[in-house]
Amino acid sequence: MDSTRPAQPPSRSARLRAMLAAPEISFLMEAHNGLSARIAQHAGFPGIWASGFAISTALGVRDSNELSTKELLDTVAFMVDATTVPIVVDGDTGYGNFNNARRLVRQLGRLGVSAVCLEDKLFPKTNSFLGTGQPLADEREFCGKIRACKDSQLDAEFCVVARVEALVSGRGLTEALHRAESYRRAGADAVFIHSKQQDGREVLDFAREWAGRCPLVITPTTYHGVGVDAFERAGVAMLIWANQNMRAAVLAMRQVCQSIAANRGLTAVEPALVSVQEVFDFLDYDELDAATLRYSSWHGDETTAGAGP
Amino acid sequence: MDSTRPAQPPSRSARLRAMLAAPEISFLMEAHNGLSARIAQHAGFPGIWASGFAISTALGVRDSNELSTKELLDTVAFMVDATTVPIVVDGDTGYGNFNNARRLVRQLGRLGVSAVCLEDKLFPKTNSFLGTGQPLADEREFCGKIRACKDSQLDAEFCVVARVEALVSGRGLTEALHRAESYRRAGADAVFIHSKQQDGREVLDFAREWAGRCPLVITPTTYHGVGVDAFERAGVAMLIWANQNMRAAVLAMRQVCQSIAANRGLTAVEPALVSVQEVFDFLDYDELDAATLRYSSWHGDETTAGAGP
Amino acid sequence: MDSTRPAQPPSRSARLRAMLAAPEISFLMEAHNGLSARIAQHAGFPGIWASGFAISTALGVRDSNELSTKELLDTVAFMVDATTVPIVVDGDTGYGNFNNARRLVRQLGRLGVSAVCLEDKLFPKTNSFLGTGQPLADEREFCGKIRACKDSQLDAEFCVVARVEALVSGRGLTEALHRAESYRRAGADAVFIHSKQQDGREVLDFAREWAGRCPLVITPTTYHGVGVDAFERAGVAMLIWANQNMRAAVLAMRQVCQSIAANRGLTAVEPALVSVQEVFDFLDYDELDAATLRYSSWHGDETTAGAGP
Amino acid sequence: MDSTRPAQPPSRSARLRAMLAAPEISFLMEAHNGLSARIAQHAGFPGIWASGFAISTALGVRDSNELSTKELLDTVAFMVDATTVPIVVDGDTGYGNFNNARRLVRQLGRLGVSAVCLEDKLFPKTNSFLGTGQPLADEREFCGKIRACKDSQLDAEFCVVARVEALVSGRGLTEALHRAESYRRAGADAVFIHSKQQDGREVLDFAREWAGRCPLVITPTTYHGVGVDAFERAGVAMLIWANQNMRAAVLAMRQVCQSIAANRGLTAVEPALVSVQEVFDFLDYDELDAATLRYSSWHGDETTAGAGP
Repeated sequence: MDSTRPAQPPSRSARLRAMLAAPEISFLMEAHNGLSARIAQHAGFPGIWASGFAISTALGVRDSNELSTKELLDTVAFMVDATTVPIVVDGDTGYGNFNNARRLVRQLGRLGVSAVCLEDKLFPKTNSFLGTGQPLADEREFCGKIRACKDSQLDAEFCVVARVEALVSGRGLTEALHRAESYRRAGADAVFIHSKQQDGREVLDFAREWAGRCPLVITPTTYHGVGVDAFERAGVAMLIWANQNMRAAVLAMRQVCQSIAANRGLTAVEPALVSVQEVFDFLDYDELDAATLRYSSWHGDETTAGAGP
Repeated sequence: MDSTRPAQPPSRSARLRAMLAAPEISFLMEAHNGLSARIAQHAGFPGIWASGFAISTALGVRDSNELSTKELLDTVAFMVDATTVPIVVDGDTGYGNFNNARRLVRQLGRLGVSAVCLEDKLFPKTNSFLGTGQPLADEREFCGKIRACKDSQLDAEFCVVARVEALVSGRGLTEALHRAESYRRAGADAVFIHSKQQDGREVLDFAREWAGRCPLVITPTTYHGVGVDAFERAGVAMLIWANQNMRAAVLAMRQVCQSIAANRGLTAVEPALVSVQEVFDFLDYDELDAATLRYSSWHGDETTAGAGP
Repeated sequence: MDSTRPAQPPSRSARLRAMLAAPEISFLMEAHNGLSARIAQHAGFPGIWASGFAISTALGVRDSNELSTKELLDTVAFMVDATTVPIVVDGDTGYGNFNNARRLVRQLGRLGVSAVCLEDKLFPKTNSFLGTGQPLADEREFCGKIRACKDSQLDAEFCVVARVEALVSGRGLTEALHRAESYRRAGADAVFIHSKQQDGREVLDFAREWAGRCPLVITPTTYHGVGVDAFERAGVAMLIWANQNMRAAVLAMRQVCQSIAANRGLTAVEPALVSVQEVFDFLDYDELDAATLRYSSWHGDETTAGAGP
Repeated sequence: MDSTRPAQPPSRSARLRAMLAAPEISFLMEAHNGLSARIAQHAGFPGIWASGFAISTALGVRDSNELSTKELLDTVAFMVDATTVPIVVDGDTGYGNFNNARRLVRQLGRLGVSAVCLEDKLFPKTNSFLGTGQPLADEREFCGKIRACKDSQLDAEFCVVARVEALVSGRGLTEALHRAESYRRAGADAVFIHSKQQDGREVLDFAREWAGRCPLVITPTTYHGVGVDAFERAGVAMLIWANQNMRAAVLAMRQVCQSIAANRGLTAVEPALVSVQEVFDFLDYDELDAATLRYSSWHGDETTAGAGP
């Protein structure tokens, strides 16, 4: 390899896999576009959760598969471009059957995504925080979907995370454990056990019974009051802050709009805004200036002449 | 028309045109995706500014035409879907020559956009707040671009706004007025006079000399301290708050990410978040519930049988 | 309306609706991209069938909803741009439930499409020429889907065509008629009765029993040997040549590739090619030359000065 | 690596680079969508030319950068999915300045494209077969564009091909050689010397003077009568059949449309069509049947249980 060519960056997927396997807990932060993904990385998060709920909301549609896969992929591509940390994409139910799901896996892999999370519900999905007792996918069909995805991934490090909705749907711990084990045996690299209780009890019970058969992933949207230490002690591998960037942006924009509309001016909102210069800095406009100097009129340098196949 | 069919909604373009023609000043709020557009409308703004700077930033790229027209159009389509007020799209320089610009006009019109703003700089553009003395487009070429757009629009009410960068580029009031008049004669429906001074002086001078030859549009990003009354008295037709939604979202998300990362929990950030239920309400999840009751198993009603061409 | 502005073109949807209502039979030709759509129009067809099978094939994927709605929409947008005749889009099963289907209807309507055809099968679909006895959608659910689409269309002239798969699935004439009547009562503007027999018998039987309750649409892919006169006499309103452009392109490209590969040259294939100049003519490159003369440096003319809101 | 996971496929880019370096001539075939790319590969071509002219034509637009980069990328993604051979993308002038061009290179590389070809003209481009004496890019600016692309590619094997338009623009052999040498020194992996003469003389002259400084690429659209042996002997590394798939499809579809319209039937055109079953075979519908059996209800097998990070 020509030494002037850039080295291949270390694989994001390998890093995601290592995070899942590590003894300590890892945290993913929700993002819904390139900007929020970059902010999450900048704050120190080692990975990004590309939330279907947050992405749908940011685009102005409902979390009911109103978005098509292509629109998800287009959004995710910007998130990959804007970051260097691993990205786990919320793939909902896989947007159809095993064939749709495995096509999604190949498309995500090509973009540079490190993992997909699939949930055992029906297409089109309903957000888990709506209603009760939502119907679940047939267990054997969902196992086939997982297996198809694993058999289709282009990168050996890519992970498929199986999201178990049995607790959310009121089916109880036994069914949740049974399904999780089936999904693991079908090839899932990790199990995402979802719950919308407030005390985190059923998640901790699940973790104890699961006993580390494969990495566990959780998202304490409703039970965040419990504190992460309990989950870390219970052996949870990865904890997702699943929608807070989006929810913060909604509140901030609402307040700013209301203030500007009421006051016909910006004075009251200035403290709630970053400066234009901060945006330029954050998206590295300086790099473009430097590159313009370098590339807008090339006269050659010592190291590049004569390169060829 | 069959009475069971929905009536055509009133034209957004006609409303935008009326706002430009009205004696009182109108305010547009920046938006960069479906969500922020809906928030701006909800706060009472009668129109949306689809800012190239804000859209680029939200997607994680720089405001240097790193975005292609298709990516702009895909974003704008969601904004149209999420709102009912007129949308003015920041078309930068038209993404090439007159032919690219007029193609953009037709594509925007088809989506339901009410106006495009074109600026007299070179493709690929540089954000106006960067550097000084940026080169301007040839005046006659830019006039041709405006004329081509006007001759191509599909909807008679669609507006082309000509953005004059002469003041920003340090060319002075005389050239600004000369160019504005040329653009007006080439067919521009309104003139956007841009300035990055802090005292608003040159904008007020321009407005006085312009003397209402056609509607004036301004964006007081740097000179917002002046207060809008002065501009209203000067006859400005439309004032754009050009990037504040995006800048508020950046600050909010940055603070939330930093707090969650530092505290390993949500308690400190809860006051900075809307609830999940508020998101459901804002995007009208109730409508989907009602529609599911109505449409998931149709047994007919009195009014619909027998409809046909 | 300013007389210098172009008049609104006559509505494609109104023309499609008139074709369905007319006593004589109309013919639609399949197209799968902007080019084939323009060729079909140029050959005199009064409308275009945007075939899911042909579009999928042209893009290189299978007709099993491997394509997402966004990819369908992006393709259709080019077809609308390249033509002026009405376009009927093959919407398969609506890409999910009633909510996905009605969203598709709004998106298609915005692009300028005149009608969508929905079939009473399950998502993801299987091409009707594959296998036998494919499962059908629940009748009441499919009625709800049709009703939701009718209630959602933005243009009163837009048509929803209900495709009845009962004959193809071996359910017989009685069920086909029963379902067709239900779909008509739910609001379908026309019924597409599909068959893969070779003698056209069951289609003619259906037409006789249907007795003109609403317009009938057919596609004689397998039974084209019957001749169109029989169907015209039977009162069929619209006949679709559903995939022949694509199938011709496949054969032509296969032969040209094989010849060039074998002969290492073009001499043998020249008679099978249009010239480069013919392509320029067909896509009206002359218009761009004329526009370049007109718009590349505008010095004004009598008719345009002073236009404004 | 877990032995149940698929091995990484061999790199397409490495194969393209090897073809350029090999002593014998290689042939690329034009394709403009997934289908034509797959047909070209099936006929034995070892690589694909994703022609801007052919892609634009297939989509129904003109070869004047009416297409945006996103639309090009979306098309190319389907071509990559439908094939396994290397793909060289016609990148026109890079869709703007060095920054647009290097962004395109990263996006193409991510999709799995093996090379981009950039030409030394101005954006928006004009097809080389139109008119005479088209203006060329500033040589130093174009060198910077090449250098920026080489510095930005993610895969060390990715190639940048510099297309020299000096002969087409009537600048003569000396300028063509001078520019080619500058582009090679700026980092171009190969030089595409374009000509629209009919006798191939100037291409052979160029090849003799070039004397193998780096691989040469040609496209004998106008001078195909010369025969490829002469170019092979002259040391040309790669010959592109640049638009024949598209031109064959146009003629075939035109004839089929005219015949069907005239005859109101398919009998006359049947010999010009592949069967529906051939389409199913060509796009491997059998694989989907087999996969459906395997994955639609998974009960596990010996090899997959217990996989994990």
